[in-house]
Amino acid sequence: MSEATQTATLWLARIHVTLKPAVVDPQGDTILSALHQLHFNDVQGVRAGKYLEVTLRAADADAAAASVDAMCSTLLANPVIERYTFDVEVAPED
Amino acid sequence: MSEATQTATLWLARIHVTLKPAVVDPQGDTILSALHQLHFNDVQGVRAGKYLEVTLRAADADAAAASVDAMCSTLLANPVIERYTFDVEVAPED
Repeated sequence: MSEATQTATLWLARIHVTLKPAVVDPQGDTILSALHQLHFNDVQGVRAGKYLEVTLRAADADAAAASVDAMCSTLLANPVIERYTFDVEVAPED
Repeated sequence: MSEATQTATLWLARIHVTLKPAVVDPQGDTILSALHQLHFNDVQGVRAGKYLEVTLRAADADAAAASVDAMCSTLLANPVIERYTFDVEVAPED
């Protein structure tokens, strides 16, 4: 990691990866069935997805977003059956 | 399902279930390692969670939120190691 990178801003990306609407969601269907067994009978449907919080260093928000987009398309989401959305903000101080 | 329930508003709840900060996240650590192998070297950390979209019928937003809160605490999240947040809005027309 270069010195410039170490002094770059720390960003927090919140990423949602969800199945495309046409794709069958066995995990969601299983949760729906379990909710009905627990007498939550007003539930109509459940779709299950992934939520990822990624912290990364980048010079600016555009660079951070470009990096996160590359991560999503190459590793975090399967473009055949999933889609992803994300937003990027300055990471809160711990 | 009662007739009153069938005419109630359809709500969409977006639920995030995340590990508590002190809990080790092997899935997130594995993703972090994979990102580094793919030369995303500026990534500092990854936390993995679940994202659920639940559609349900309820008389009003407060009733929908109360129902979703009960679902989270009894089935969708493990209160020992996880925490959950959600928001409820009128479900978009398909």
